[in-house]
Amino acid sequence: MTTDYETQFSPLISARSRKRFFKTFYDFDAKPDPLAHPNPIPLGGGTPNEGFFPVESIHVNLVDQPFQHFDYEVKGPGTNSFDKNTDEQVHKLNGDHTAVNTYRYPLNDDQISIHKGFQYSNSDGFPQLQKFSKELITTLHKPAYDDYDVIITNGSGDSLFKVADLVCEDGGSILVEEFTFTPFNNSAENHNTAVIPVKLNIKDGSEPGIDPEYLDDLLTNWSTGPYKDKKKPTALYTIPTGQNPTGLTQSLSLRKKIYALAEKHNFLIIEDDPYGYIVLPKYGTPNVYESPDFTPAEYKKLLTPSYLTIDTSGRVIRLDTYSKLFAPGLRLGFITANPYLRRRIFIHTLLSTRHPSGVSQLLLNNIIQQWGGVDGWLTWSSKVAKHYTYRRDIFLKEIYSSQPYKQGQITVVEPDAGMFIIVYINIESQVQDPHDYEKILAKLKTKYIRHGVDVVFGNKMVADPTFENTIKNGNFIRTTIAAVSDNDALIEGLKRFSSATTEFFEELNGGQYDELISK
Amino acid sequence: MTTDYETQFSPLISARSRKRFFKTFYDFDAKPDPLAHPNPIPLGGGTPNEGFFPVESIHVNLVDQPFQHFDYEVKGPGTNSFDKNTDEQVHKLNGDHTAVNTYRYPLNDDQISIHKGFQYSNSDGFPQLQKFSKELITTLHKPAYDDYDVIITNGSGDSLFKVADLVCEDGGSILVEEFTFTPFNNSAENHNTAVIPVKLNIKDGSEPGIDPEYLDDLLTNWSTGPYKDKKKPTALYTIPTGQNPTGLTQSLSLRKKIYALAEKHNFLIIEDDPYGYIVLPKYGTPNVYESPDFTPAEYKKLLTPSYLTIDTSGRVIRLDTYSKLFAPGLRLGFITANPYLRRRIFIHTLLSTRHPSGVSQLLLNNIIQQWGGVDGWLTWSSKVAKHYTYRRDIFLKEIYSSQPYKQGQITVVEPDAGMFIIVYINIESQVQDPHDYEKILAKLKTKYIRHGVDVVFGNKMVADPTFENTIKNGNFIRTTIAAVSDNDALIEGLKRFSSATTEFFEELNGGQYDELISK
Repeated sequence: MTTDYETQFSPLISARSRKRFFKTFYDFDAKPDPLAHPNPIPLGGGTPNEGFFPVESIHVNLVDQPFQHFDYEVKGPGTNSFDKNTDEQVHKLNGDHTAVNTYRYPLNDDQISIHKGFQYSNSDGFPQLQKFSKELITTLHKPAYDDYDVIITNGSGDSLFKVADLVCEDGGSILVEEFTFTPFNNSAENHNTAVIPVKLNIKDGSEPGIDPEYLDDLLTNWSTGPYKDKKKPTALYTIPTGQNPTGLTQSLSLRKKIYALAEKHNFLIIEDDPYGYIVLPKYGTPNVYESPDFTPAEYKKLLTPSYLTIDTSGRVIRLDTYSKLFAPGLRLGFITANPYLRRRIFIHTLLSTRHPSGVSQLLLNNIIQQWGGVDGWLTWSSKVAKHYTYRRDIFLKEIYSSQPYKQGQITVVEPDAGMFIIVYINIESQVQDPHDYEKILAKLKTKYIRHGVDVVFGNKMVADPTFENTIKNGNFIRTTIAAVSDNDALIEGLKRFSSATTEFFEELNGGQYDELISK
Repeated sequence: MTTDYETQFSPLISARSRKRFFKTFYDFDAKPDPLAHPNPIPLGGGTPNEGFFPVESIHVNLVDQPFQHFDYEVKGPGTNSFDKNTDEQVHKLNGDHTAVNTYRYPLNDDQISIHKGFQYSNSDGFPQLQKFSKELITTLHKPAYDDYDVIITNGSGDSLFKVADLVCEDGGSILVEEFTFTPFNNSAENHNTAVIPVKLNIKDGSEPGIDPEYLDDLLTNWSTGPYKDKKKPTALYTIPTGQNPTGLTQSLSLRKKIYALAEKHNFLIIEDDPYGYIVLPKYGTPNVYESPDFTPAEYKKLLTPSYLTIDTSGRVIRLDTYSKLFAPGLRLGFITANPYLRRRIFIHTLLSTRHPSGVSQLLLNNIIQQWGGVDGWLTWSSKVAKHYTYRRDIFLKEIYSSQPYKQGQITVVEPDAGMFIIVYINIESQVQDPHDYEKILAKLKTKYIRHGVDVVFGNKMVADPTFENTIKNGNFIRTTIAAVSDNDALIEGLKRFSSATTEFFEELNGGQYDELISK
């Protein structure tokens, strides 16, 4: 049975998306003519023949491990470094197992050849990459309904923009985690859609993530609550695993509670999951990825199941990206959704981006095929997760031995996944009114800039800076283990972080900021 | 002196674009701190370090001529063919001048290396590719004002969507050529913007292209004319060179007349020019590109100057693409505009596509650099134009010797540029009422499908199917010389075109469609 997703979900999407059309000057919808010539000659479409493309072949040289080329093997795990100035870069081509060769015409059906990858192509992505992406979701996060499908996008930034266009109605409202990745909020606000913060449990001992009681109460008592003048929300935007910025991961049981609320109050769930594949074993336990016989099956067991796996109605829109596990410059990601919602995003794509870069798709797909499809991809993913685990371990070891930690000036929220670790700055005893946090933390910001460590302040990544819970809990720093060049730099960065924090507390405790604190 | 483009042009753009904002959680606008550490360690942004990217090096093998790999040299100019089934494709790497090598770190500043190309990057494109694109415009089509700038986009499809978003106001109207590339119209109509057709002179002996008297009259008498209930248009969308579908090229003197009207009636000019670099020497004259000492300077002289070259006010938005001269799968193009309009498109990009594929930019840029920058690019472009000229010559030779042509059943409009050639189906004497053209031509369509030739019907590429001039002049077929694999296929396609057309006229003249023709 096919559910009538249109009847069910069209009331939850924007009129703009609902009505959007694309009329082509080709007769895509024409009935096939039984007498049509089997091999028509193309004098119609303005697609340059592939003979006009100057590229004859592409040869890509891969590493087997992240940071391998940075003398990884010489210096041991977690101590990579390299000379940025050298002209000489390892490359072993032809016959070596790490070379991926692509020619003008395909060597097999799983490859994307130059004559296709460099040509105009499908707006929902190459069939090969769609097939792989759907297989990945089916293997790891099989939806609880049958006719889900994927569409390849120009990365999750593009996905977010298209999903915001889909769900954000003029005059409507959507729910977002109180601390969040704010570009989505920008899109909503540009559509004149209200962004309603949802309380997060971060460090008070409650189950981490969205507070389900708060959310239920908010929606049940909407008409008498703080947002009674706004329409009831039609969607929730959530980053459920290794959340940005908090690093929190919602447990499956919490997801079930939130999903039940989505059913009860009839809203869509937009699940943005760039970080969920970077599972971090609990600090102090072995780095499981180091085991020489670590398998994709074991990796799968580590992952927290997506909202898709409990989605019986087709109300989850899941966003995946190839940026974090492969490379952001590809600008490739995908959306998993029911056929009706996918179709609306497809129409938007026909009119706007047309299709993701074929060159990016060719490169990514052919490398994945060389790696051996889903299992090969998971093997690479687990190698990436291994290195994030190295870095997380170094980070926590360093910070737990730092002066500010030992003196109780900072609290770390250990993440179960992803690349972000938040550090609370414990100024509660010195600064009684949370409304004063921001101006005091501005002093700390200056310290970090001058000590030479770049961090993001939690109070910049908020849905609503006037939300009481946000004001009370916004005194944290978002750090990341993703960007530094090597572990030495990570350690040096944390030393600078500590020295700056120490200096800040010396001045705070010394009364130097007293005039900033209203009494 | 810097013109105040915002004051001048903000009334001509949409409220949506005018008001759009992007707030980042980084302090991009923070004042620089003079005591800031000179080498901050990045624990802030969630950008994976390049050591996580699996790609170590990329090696691209180029051909020196379009179709070179298709036994071009063996079979002689214009008779390319190849075996699509062969696994063996020429590739000569390392040391050969046609190989382009890219490593994780750059070999020089003009290259985009993997550590940048695979990373998150600038929303307006890599500086290297912006520099090249601006240099190309400055060399070939220098604007008549000083502070023009370029922004790299995800191809002209993306540019058109962003420009439609920029200029299309809810309840507004824009001017488009009566026969046109209709995806732009779709976007306008989705914004609830009226699309007003502008009369084209195609084959009546008048100067080809937009009819300036018609346009002036339309706008001067707007309040009493056929569109008096709509707002006066704020922009004109035009494809001035090798127009799609008509193949027409506006002369510089015509462009000056149109530009004067833009100044008089205060509208923006959106110049979409994917085809202008494919200049076709007049049929019967030598293929100038064959000369062994053909120079970029000579090539430059062949080009019809862009509207930019007469744009003293900054009201032209020019769209360029890398699809037609390099490859569509790159999804790369660029927009040239004044700083105010460029900024609005940039904000849209920050929220949506973020940035074009870094992989595409890396590949394109590094190949262009290997070719030697602007002059190298122009040399390649002229080689592409040479092959389009071969194909155009074959097309016209074949069609002028066909039965339908000899019998006066078809008329060819010879193009001066681009990839499209339109063929009028001369049914005027048999079908007196142009309103009957469409149903009669549906019969011809079936003929082409069954004879095995794919073409596009002019009456599908219209701004307004009820526009009287469109109804009267819509009896043409748009053909293209771009897509066929080789000249043999082109010749075979035209033979099929002729036989189908002959059969159609036999049946039309034999009275078989009489019942379709209202008397």
